[in-house]
Amino acid sequence: MKTSNLFSGIPNGLREEIFETLLKTDTFTLERIVSSGQATPPGQWYDQETHEWVILLKGHAGLVFEGEEEVYRLHPGDHVRIPAHRRHRVEWTEAGQTTVWLALHYRE
Amino acid sequence: MKTSNLFSGIPNGLREEIFETLLKTDTFTLERIVSSGQATPPGQWYDQETHEWVILLKGHAGLVFEGEEEVYRLHPGDHVRIPAHRRHRVEWTEAGQTTVWLALHYRE
Repeated sequence: MKTSNLFSGIPNGLREEIFETLLKTDTFTLERIVSSGQATPPGQWYDQETHEWVILLKGHAGLVFEGEEEVYRLHPGDHVRIPAHRRHRVEWTEAGQTTVWLALHYRE
Repeated sequence: MKTSNLFSGIPNGLREEIFETLLKTDTFTLERIVSSGQATPPGQWYDQETHEWVILLKGHAGLVFEGEEEVYRLHPGDHVRIPAHRRHRVEWTEAGQTTVWLALHYRE
């Protein structure tokens, strides 16, 4: 059997976020996302066809949902289910360190 | 939106492993498993109808596959895909601390 590590294989000094598919079937995609200070561009929202369950596992990030004032400050272990078409954005991720997410995009 | 934390809500002094469903659809179940020194009973194997992708996120554990000599020592972030009916056992989990796993059981 082959084991991998979610926190390994991350290049230093990332200029862009990395999206890497870990597992994919007809109904879901599991991906690792590595951020390093990136955020969703101002005024833009994610509006996704699929539901998403996402967990932050390293670093910190701020998550915002359209129509809500609150910026959710996510710490390692924090997870949230985002229904399809629930518009949201990543307000910030921590600069100068990597933030690692695990995202499960799925259809019911 | 409601966020939860994977490392929260763990009782002290667990006598048994905790299996908690986080998300369930027709094709997959995502669960949190919390161990504290438990192992698969001697001579027993997991033989599952579904595939499993599992990641260890806190603590340490030893994983064995039938027919392999190696005991895979899992550290936080280590993940492995276990095909359905690939017999395996948890040889040990760290005593005196909690070991937290995230397991995705799925059909293709």
